[in-house]
Parts: sequence; structure tokens; C-alpha cells
Amino acid sequence: MNTFENLQLGFNKELNAYHVGSHPKNLYGPVHYTLSMGGKRLRPVLLLMAAEAFGGNTEHAMPAALAIEIFHNSTLVHDDIMDKADLRRNQPTVHREWNTNIAILSGDLMILKSYEALNKLDTPHLSSVLSVFNRITAQVCEGQQLDLDFENNNEVNISDYMDMIRLKTSVLLAGALEIGAIIGGASKEDAKKIYCFGEHLGLAFQLQDDFLDAFGNKNTFGKKIGGDIVANKKTYLLLKALELTQGPYRDQLTSLMNNKSIDENEKIAQVLQIYKGLKIKELAEDAMLKHYDKAFASLKDVQLDEIRKHALYQVSEKLIHRES
Amino acid sequence: MNTFENLQLGFNKELNAYHVGSHPKNLYGPVHYTLSMGGKRLRPVLLLMAAEAFGGNTEHAMPAALAIEIFHNSTLVHDDIMDKADLRRNQPTVHREWNTNIAILSGDLMILKSYEALNKLDTPHLSSVLSVFNRITAQVCEGQQLDLDFENNNEVNISDYMDMIRLKTSVLLAGALEIGAIIGGASKEDAKKIYCFGEHLGLAFQLQDDFLDAFGNKNTFGKKIGGDIVANKKTYLLLKALELTQGPYRDQLTSLMNNKSIDENEKIAQVLQIYKGLKIKELAEDAMLKHYDKAFASLKDVQLDEIRKHALYQVSEKLIHRES
Repeated sequence: MNTFENLQLGFNKELNAYHVGSHPKNLYGPVHYTLSMGGKRLRPVLLLMAAEAFGGNTEHAMPAALAIEIFHNSTLVHDDIMDKADLRRNQPTVHREWNTNIAILSGDLMILKSYEALNKLDTPHLSSVLSVFNRITAQVCEGQQLDLDFENNNEVNISDYMDMIRLKTSVLLAGALEIGAIIGGASKEDAKKIYCFGEHLGLAFQLQDDFLDAFGNKNTFGKKIGGDIVANKKTYLLLKALELTQGPYRDQLTSLMNNKSIDENEKIAQVLQIYKGLKIKELAEDAMLKHYDKAFASLKDVQLDEIRKHALYQVSEKLIHRES
Repeated sequence: MNTFENLQLGFNKELNAYHVGSHPKNLYGPVHYTLSMGGKRLRPVLLLMAAEAFGGNTEHAMPAALAIEIFHNSTLVHDDIMDKADLRRNQPTVHREWNTNIAILSGDLMILKSYEALNKLDTPHLSSVLSVFNRITAQVCEGQQLDLDFENNNEVNISDYMDMIRLKTSVLLAGALEIGAIIGGASKEDAKKIYCFGEHLGLAFQLQDDFLDAFGNKNTFGKKIGGDIVANKKTYLLLKALELTQGPYRDQLTSLMNNKSIDENEKIAQVLQIYKGLKIKELAEDAMLKHYDKAFASLKDVQLDEIRKHALYQVSEKLIHRES
């Protein structure tokens, strides 16, 4: 059984060697640029891990791992247009380096190229794999739309938020594991359980993102602490604080959100003070750990020798203790 | 064997009843809006026709017909963003009726939904069909990119142009026919010949688009004559005129193109006068008929009773004589 690092290395080697095309260069250039930006490769590695856990081999599952990573990257290119983001991994985003039309079109091409990779699978389960892939990729779009809708909606609550991050983040992670399990030959029940593991892992992962933005260690986080607070982003933390506050406390929070002239650091400090009073840190940690626990319980329930699940436990532990 | 009209009617019924999803409504609303705008449904009808010609039944091929039409519509939504088009079929485009972010995301979803439809095919040829679908849809993106590139390139010649319209327009039409043939059980050779038929039909179709814009009958064309001329669009007509003119004639043409203050109707009249002197009308007709002839020759070459090809001949004749 391979470790996370082994699989990551093997995957990156395959991705670098994978031929997506080259002409016209204004279309394929951005695809190569995006795919070579790096990243944790969490989704494809989880897919390969699941395939291996059920007795499949990683070479066999590689086309699906490539597909899931290429699709994931297509969403980054299009999300960056929608978010007007200038940088990704400290490099200019595609719509900045080229232009918006090229970013739209090369993102489209990456969606198509993910299916091209998928069709290289040598498996009797092609239609089942496609079925999962089609479902989860459509859900990612649904999650992104909900996220866009939330920007102009002041009635969003924690339950709406959890539903949004489930679609936007968790299902692709969970579906990657399910596809790996199918290719590895898992039973339907086990494929569902491993999906469930991934779903809760994804929710915990996203909650941790929110958590680190406010309570991370500035030396290890890699970004400025409080970015979400400055942007009034409707994170778990803010929504929980709004849920818990009534009367003057709530007025204090919303007036900080509406104050456009306040110094950024002052705003961060004051919001963190409110979070402290409401014990938001502890509540967010509880929510996170609840989902990690559910993830572990689902994984435990999978009908496999515990030794075969070792790498999956290991990656979950790694995610719990991450600081960036 | 069904006629074009029968298949169009049957296809529209299936498309109207097809469930793509509904929530969130800002995502699925634009999908329903786009798919119900209408249109000739040329690609899915050709697909069904090819399936029937080779002995398949239309019900069996329907998921692929839906896939090709849904994909085609995704490109319209994204192209309209790139072209800054306000109207399509006299209705506001998606990015005008909603906004650009929603148009990007709903276009993405339509690509994914085209694969979802495709995966409903009950065929041992799923992987072959996917392979054609993946190839032609990527080529459509390549064609669109070349079209974008051409806007800022004054060195484009007729050969570049034919390559661009082949990718942007012909391959989807040709691939629709190839997929229909595969589902119907055609041999590899016949599937290639029917592809070749579609490729030349598509080229002739696009050349006719260019032709009608300049030389169509204003009473039957449905749009203002000369739109391409006003926009300096690099059509077959303009590129042929530029190819044929040297010295003062060329200067006259390029100065008309660069003249931003000239009255539109005056510009159209003067460019048409140049086209007349260069016999562009006759040359474009020749080019168009050359591709129609090649299309017919490929179709004739398909190893089927001529009676089974009747509907395909009929649709080609219809396209030759169209006036809008």
C-alpha cells in the first residue's frame, strides 16, 4: 500500500507526461499553465488510495485520477473569473495572464479533457464511473451557484451554508473516493460508505479552512489572518456569530461589516473579540471534529481489513492537524 | 424511415420532457431558457437519421441526440459572452438576462449534462461514442479559439479560414452523423464516410451563411443584409476579395474597412461593388457547390441501399436551397 507522498509523486509524474494537446496555443497554453501550478492533488490521491484499498492497482485507476484533477482545475479557472481573483498560488490567474474569453474557453476544454481521460479507463465499470462523475461535477456547479447566490442574500443560515460547502467542496472529494472504490472492485455498500467518509472529511476540511482564516497561526498559515473577515465572507464563523447574537451584539457585528472606512486590522481585531465572547472558536472546533468523527466512523464501517485502510486514516489525521 | 420534420418533432418532444434538474434556479433556469429557445435541431436530427439509416431505432439513439444538442447549446451560451451578443433568436442572451457569472456556470453545467444524457445510452459502443464526442467537442473549442485569434490577425488566409470553420462548425455536425452511425451499427468505414459527408455539408453550410449575408434576399434572409461587411468579419467573401486584390483595389477595400465614420449602407454598397468586380459571388457559389458535391460523393460511397439514404439526401438538398 502506497503512502500519500508516494501516490502524490506518482500522480504528478503521470500528469506531467499526460498529453492534452497543443494547438491553438492560446487555448492549450492556459491548460498546461493551470495543470502545472501544483497543489496538494488531494482528490486524485484519495481516488488512487481507495482503488488500492479495495485491491485495484493505481495504474489501472490513473485515468480517473487524471480526470478528477483536470475537472477540479477547470473549476478553479472559471471560479477565478467569477471571483475576479488576480492570483492563484502566487501566479496570475488565467483571465489575468491571457483574458476572460480565453479563460472561459480553456476551462470548457478542461471539462472535456477530463472526460477524455476518463474514457481511457479499462474497466467494465465505465458507465458506473461516468454516472458518479456526472453527478458530482454537476453538484460542484450547484454549490458554486449557491455560493454566488449567498453574496446577495442576508438570510443565509448555517444549514444553507453546510449544504453549499457539501456541494462545492465535499462531493468531489467524496466522489473521487467512490470512483476509486468502484474501480478497485468494492461492493455498492462499501462504495457508499467510502463516499460518506469523503463527504464528512470534505465538510471538516472546509470548516477548517474557515477556522484557520481566523484562528490560524500567522507563521504557518501562509496567508494573512482575517482575509474572510475583511471580505465579510459568509463563513461558518460569521454565520454562527450572527445566529448567536441578538440586539446590541448583533448591531455591533453588522455595523462592523457595513463600515467601509474602518482600518482592516482594527476590523479584524474587533470581530475576533466578538468571536471570543461568543466562543466561536470552540464551536467551530466542535463542528469540525464532529465531521472528522463521522468520517472515521464511516471508514471504520467499510468491510476491509483495517490494514488496508491505513493510508486513508493517515491522510485524515494529516488534514486534521494541518495549519495551512 | 422518418423525414426531417418527423425527427425534429420527435426530438423536440423528448427534449421538452427531458429532466436536467431545477435547483438552484439561478443555475437551472438559464439551462431551460436556452434549451427552449428553439432552433433547427439540425445536429440531433442528423444523428437520428444516421442511426436509422444503418438500421438502428431513433429511441435507442435519442440520449446521444440530446447530448449533442445540449452541448451545442452550451457553446452558444459561452460564445454569446465572448461575442458580447445581446440577443439570440430575438431573446436576451443568458449573460444579459442573468449575468456573466451565471452564464459561465450554466454553460459549464450544460457540458456536464450532455455527458449525463450520453451515459443513458444502452449500447455496447458507449466508449466509442464517448471517444467521438470527446474529440469533436474539443475541436469545437479549438475552432472558437482560432476564431478569437483571427480577430487580431491580419494575415489570415482562406486556408486558415476553412480550417477554422471546419473545427467550429463542421466537426460537430459530422460527429453527430458518425455517432448516429455507430449506434446504428455501421462499419468503421461507413462511419468514416458519413463523417466525411457531414464535414463537407458543414463547410458548405457555413460558406452559405457567409454568402447569404452579402447576397441573400432581404425579404427571406430574416436579418439585415451586410451585417458581416459592417463588422469587418473575416468571412470567405472578404478573405477571397483580399486574396484577389493588389495595389489600389486592395487599398480601396482596406480603407473602407478602416473607415469608422462612413454610413453603414454606403459601406455595404461599396464593398458589394468591389465583390461584384471580383466575381466573389460566383467564386463563393463555386466553393459552396464543391463542398456539397464532395458531401454527396461521400454519402453515395456509403455501403447502404440508396433508399436508406433518402432522408440524408433530402436534408442536404434542403440546406442547399435555404434562404436564411
